[in-house]
Amino acid sequence: MQKPLILVTNDDGISAPGIRNLVHFMNELGEVVVVAPDSPQSGKGHAITINSTLTYEEISMKGPQKDYAVSGTPADCVKFALDKIMTRKPDIVVSGINHGSNSSINVIYSGTMSAAVEAGVEGLSSIGFSLLDFGWDANFMEGKPYIQSIVEKVLKNPLPEGVVLNVNIPNLKKEEIKGIKICKQARAKWEENFDERVSPHGKKYYWLTGYFNNMDDSENADETALADGYISVVPIKFDLTAYEYMERLEKMINNR
Amino acid sequence: MQKPLILVTNDDGISAPGIRNLVHFMNELGEVVVVAPDSPQSGKGHAITINSTLTYEEISMKGPQKDYAVSGTPADCVKFALDKIMTRKPDIVVSGINHGSNSSINVIYSGTMSAAVEAGVEGLSSIGFSLLDFGWDANFMEGKPYIQSIVEKVLKNPLPEGVVLNVNIPNLKKEEIKGIKICKQARAKWEENFDERVSPHGKKYYWLTGYFNNMDDSENADETALADGYISVVPIKFDLTAYEYMERLEKMINNR
Repeated sequence: MQKPLILVTNDDGISAPGIRNLVHFMNELGEVVVVAPDSPQSGKGHAITINSTLTYEEISMKGPQKDYAVSGTPADCVKFALDKIMTRKPDIVVSGINHGSNSSINVIYSGTMSAAVEAGVEGLSSIGFSLLDFGWDANFMEGKPYIQSIVEKVLKNPLPEGVVLNVNIPNLKKEEIKGIKICKQARAKWEENFDERVSPHGKKYYWLTGYFNNMDDSENADETALADGYISVVPIKFDLTAYEYMERLEKMINNR
Repeated sequence: MQKPLILVTNDDGISAPGIRNLVHFMNELGEVVVVAPDSPQSGKGHAITINSTLTYEEISMKGPQKDYAVSGTPADCVKFALDKIMTRKPDIVVSGINHGSNSSINVIYSGTMSAAVEAGVEGLSSIGFSLLDFGWDANFMEGKPYIQSIVEKVLKNPLPEGVVLNVNIPNLKKEEIKGIKICKQARAKWEENFDERVSPHGKKYYWLTGYFNNMDDSENADETALADGYISVVPIKFDLTAYEYMERLEKMINNR
């Protein structure tokens, strides 16, 4: 039987510890091709490169996988991998492991998840993984059995069209992780605060800062699951239509 | 009675004809503050500026509104406007008019819609407008009565929490526009094709090209409405949870 073909990408860049760990985990499950940004792309959302050009290099990293560094965004990497690099369609696309959370509203800003969504748009099963630790020295090994188990289950049961998985892993030791919870995206937002500074030339400039405000204590919200020590899995979709509001909007806009 | 306060932003940059037309339309409905990128930001998705700094300038444009140019993305502009520039909460946020379509899957790549979504996350009523004409000389006037009517209706009936509107306008004369249709996001994708070139130094580089593939001929899909000469209005949400798939996923991942 042919080994499953696994495309790995991320948004922290091809040399980030998070993706190197994910590659290592995936090498035990199948044939791995890595196509990832040549530099960090965090907070770039679902960006694509239209007005400038892309280049790529095959690079040599430890392990049996093939590695390609692309001068673009995570979404670019998925498009480029499928169109230019891979000779057959991957059985699954995995993105991450992100250095830091992509739970709740973070999903809309996330380059990691934009790569997973792009793969979903292409009709592939795909999963984004994130660890709740921003540090470059984060310990990605603790989540290994869970990550491998989720990927194996999706390989056996491909996701339905239009759905991708957003997996977040609490920053805990293996024995402290309580299991996996299927969750909804918690209602939350960033309360921003622009920190003002003055340049040596007297011009004001601003740093975006702020704090995360979770407004959702539902038992099945991803923030709740993570706080309780579970890995959260949120199925997300890229048909953004608010179907439940269409009828009311029809009355409001067209008076009928 | 106090005039409604309207925040206007976009992703094509503060001097683009699309936003100047939208400002002109909004000046007839309320007090207008413009906070928009100082340079074009198309295709940047829902990006935010975390790792570099922002600056802004008040600039002087024709009309009674106030104009501020920000060195950031559309989502940055909304955050910055609310936190640093505006002294009271706007009654509505309008983004656009984008030069080019943001219908169907384009919504996920759209800077115009990311600004609208950011405003929605902030709990404000917000609408993104796009015209199906990429040209800098596009005729934005034809949609004026429709745009004003939609904004007036939303001012009277604020949108429910978690919903923003994605409005696309066909490139037609006023008398050819058949009306407004409330729609769902059409199932569609870009079939990409990377156009290979060689630099003077012998290095291969690639341009992202491709064509739009609409796979959805439903009567209530936005692509169908636009092709039929209607303005499409899709209510979209930023809770991406695929609720309908949670139970099946629970069985698949947790065997229960």
